[in-house]
Formats: sequence, C-alpha cells, structure tokens
Amino acid sequence: MTINPPYYAVIFTSVKKENAKGYEQMAEKMVTLAKQQPGFIGVESARNEIGVTVSYWQSLEAISLWKQHTQHLIAQELGKNNWYKHYKVRICLVEREYEF
Amino acid sequence: MTINPPYYAVIFTSVKKENAKGYEQMAEKMVTLAKQQPGFIGVESARNEIGVTVSYWQSLEAISLWKQHTQHLIAQELGKNNWYKHYKVRICLVEREYEF
Repeated sequence: MTINPPYYAVIFTSVKKENAKGYEQMAEKMVTLAKQQPGFIGVESARNEIGVTVSYWQSLEAISLWKQHTQHLIAQELGKNNWYKHYKVRICLVEREYEF
Repeated sequence: MTINPPYYAVIFTSVKKENAKGYEQMAEKMVTLAKQQPGFIGVESARNEIGVTVSYWQSLEAISLWKQHTQHLIAQELGKNNWYKHYKVRICLVEREYEF
C-alpha cells in the first residue's frame, strides 16, 4: 500500500450462511484474481460474526472492470445463491489517511 | 444504517500485540461511547490476523469530534503504547452503495 490519497476503497460487508460449501476456495481465488487486475492496490479482510473486506483501487474504472470480470460475475452469482445471507458494498473515496 | 450516500466511513485496520491486556474492555467501551456521539451512523468490525473496523459518520466534523473525545484520546494513547503493533486510519467519502 504505497499510494497516497485520493484513491478508492470498496467496503464489502457480509453475513455468510452456516453451510457455505466452496466459499473459502472461491474467496482465495477471487483475491488472487483481483491482485492481477489493473488499478488494484491492496486488500484487507477479517471475519467473525460478519466479514469485512476492504479492497483498494486506483480509480472507479478499475473497480467497475473488476466487478464485470467474468470469473468474478460467477462468484457473485454463487455468493447470492449459495453463500451469503446478506451483503453490502460501499464504494468510497479515500480522502485522508494516517498510521502508527 | 438507514442513511443514503454521501456519508463518511472511517476504515481502521490494526495488528494487535500478542499480549493486549485490557484491550477488549476498552474496545467495547469505545463502541458504546461512539454510538452516543453526534453524527454517528453505525460500526462494523471483525478480527483475525488483522482487525478491520469501519465506522460510519454523517460528516467530517462528527469524525473530528469523536477523534478528540477525551475518553477516546486516552484509548488512542493506550493503543499506541500497549496494544497495537501497527494501525492505519483512512477517512473516506462513501459515494455509492448497494446490497443483497
């Protein structure tokens, strides 16, 4: 994560079904694929009761291209049909950041 | 979470030290306090290897007031000195959202 703001963040929060067979494998595959996308900066993720995954992108166009990626579209469909009770996606402009 | 974009998100990612005594208690206290702040909308959080906490706010002013809250300042100091190996804060404008 070496880029300075402004850049974009996609906040993906989700609640999984109890039996989400095949989910972990697909999640790993999607991270691998996302990392190869143009404009990808990084991704951070954690899950307990809910999952919070934040991916970082150089532009809205990069986000849009990833959203329409064929393999990602398949994952999205499986997510809706098999894996998620609920999810929410927020497209955000990162304006400022600081760290310790 | 009933507000429509634009609103603000604060993405807080952190790596905790192994022995973070008193952390859980303070984290709960901070969530309770944040919920009482003007302009607070909601918070979502998960932790495995890293922690990802996203809080949602109506304005930059609300975020700034919370950052300067006396109890929160104490927590921030304890965080730097006792609990975190590393953390990063990103202030973001939520431009668009959709859910399933």
